[in-house]
Amino acid sequence: MTAQTEALVFDAYGTLFDVHSVTRLAESHFPGKGTALSQAWRAKQLDYTWLRSLMGRYDDFGTVTADALDWSLDSLGLAAPPGTRTALLRAYRELAPFPEVRGALERLARGRMLAILSNGHPDMLDAVIDHNDLRVWFGDRVLSVHDAAVYKPDPRVYALATARLERPAASIGFVSSNGWDAAGAKSFGFATWWVNRAKAPPERLGSPPDGVVADLAELATRLG
Amino acid sequence: MTAQTEALVFDAYGTLFDVHSVTRLAESHFPGKGTALSQAWRAKQLDYTWLRSLMGRYDDFGTVTADALDWSLDSLGLAAPPGTRTALLRAYRELAPFPEVRGALERLARGRMLAILSNGHPDMLDAVIDHNDLRVWFGDRVLSVHDAAVYKPDPRVYALATARLERPAASIGFVSSNGWDAAGAKSFGFATWWVNRAKAPPERLGSPPDGVVADLAELATRLG
Repeated sequence: MTAQTEALVFDAYGTLFDVHSVTRLAESHFPGKGTALSQAWRAKQLDYTWLRSLMGRYDDFGTVTADALDWSLDSLGLAAPPGTRTALLRAYRELAPFPEVRGALERLARGRMLAILSNGHPDMLDAVIDHNDLRVWFGDRVLSVHDAAVYKPDPRVYALATARLERPAASIGFVSSNGWDAAGAKSFGFATWWVNRAKAPPERLGSPPDGVVADLAELATRLG
Repeated sequence: MTAQTEALVFDAYGTLFDVHSVTRLAESHFPGKGTALSQAWRAKQLDYTWLRSLMGRYDDFGTVTADALDWSLDSLGLAAPPGTRTALLRAYRELAPFPEVRGALERLARGRMLAILSNGHPDMLDAVIDHNDLRVWFGDRVLSVHDAAVYKPDPRVYALATARLERPAASIGFVSSNGWDAAGAKSFGFATWWVNRAKAPPERLGSPPDGVVADLAELATRLG
C-alpha cells in the first residue's frame, strides 16, 4: 500500500471522533462514574450492533446508542433524569475530533478522494461533521451502514464504499482505529490501516492490517 | 410458557457450566490477575464469535477461545509459558457445572426431552459433558453451532434444534444465562427462559424472554 492509493475511506467513531469525549459530560452528571459509564456505553453499543446484525434485527444507530446507554446506566446503578439522558445522547452529535485530525485530513486530501463509512445514522453523521466543519474534506461521500441495514463488519457494509466510489476494493485504503473494523475491511478486500490509538494488542481475527499507525498524522507522513 | 413445554434446550457455557471456574486456575498462574484475565477472556471470546460470524469467517470455538486467550494475556501484559496456556485452554474441557445443575436437570427431565445447543466445538462439548457425567440427561442431543458454521445469535444456529428435535420452535423452551442468547432464541421463535445468574439489567435487543429465573433450580420449580 503506497501513495498510489486513490481513495481513503475513514471510519468515524473512534477514528475521526473521540467517543470518550463524552466522558467529561458523563463525569459532570455522575461524579466518579464518568469513565466507567463512557466505557460501558461504548462496549455495549458495539455489542448491540453485532448482535442485532446477527439476529437480522437491524435498528438504526441512534436507537442502538440510546439502548446501550440505558443498559449501561442500569448496570452501574445510575438513575438519569430525562434531561441528563438527552444531553448524553446529544453529545454524540457533537463529539470532538482527535487533535491531529484537521491537519492530517488536509495533508491526506492532496491528490486523493476522502470518504467516511460509518455505523452512524446519516443524521448523526451529518450533525457531527457539520458541527466540526469537516464537510469540506468529504462532500457527499459520507456513507452510512443504514443503507445496507446491517452493521460492520458485515461485507455488505464495505461494499457500499466500492459502489459509491466506483473503484475496486484493492485501490481503496480503509482507515480505522477499531482493529475488528480493519480486519473486516481487509477481509472484504481493502488495503487497510489500523490506527492503534489505544496501543491495543493486535486482534486475532485473521486478515491483519497492511499498516499500523499511532494516529492520522503518522498516516499522512507514511502516505506522503 | 407452561409445563406443557415438550422439550428444553440449554445453552452450555455460562448456563450449565461456570466459565469463571477457570478464575481460580488463572489466579494460581497470575496472582492478583485471575479475575481480570477470566473476564477479559470471556468477553473477547464472545466478541470474536460475533465478529467472525459477521465477516463470514467462521473458525471453530477451540480456535476462537485460544485466540481470545492470547489477546487477553497481551492486553493485561501477561506472558504465559506454553504449559500455562495449555492448562488454561484445557480447563474449558473440565469446567464445573453450577452447584444446582445436577439436581435441577433431574427434576426438569421428568416428562421432557432435554438437549444442549452450544457455541462449543463438538469435541469440547463431549469432553465437558463426560467429565461431569451429565450425558445421561442429553444422550446424543448435544448440538453444536459447528454444523451451521456460524455462531449464536444467527437464526441458522437455533434452526439446528428444531431440525434435530423435529418440533416447532414454539413448543421448545430455550434456556440461557446469556441475555443476548435468550433474545436471539426468542427472535427465532422459541419460548425462552433467561437465567439471570449475574443479576444483570435486561438486554435492550427487542425479543424479551418469556420468563426470568435466578438459576435452574428456580426454573425446575416454576415448570413443576
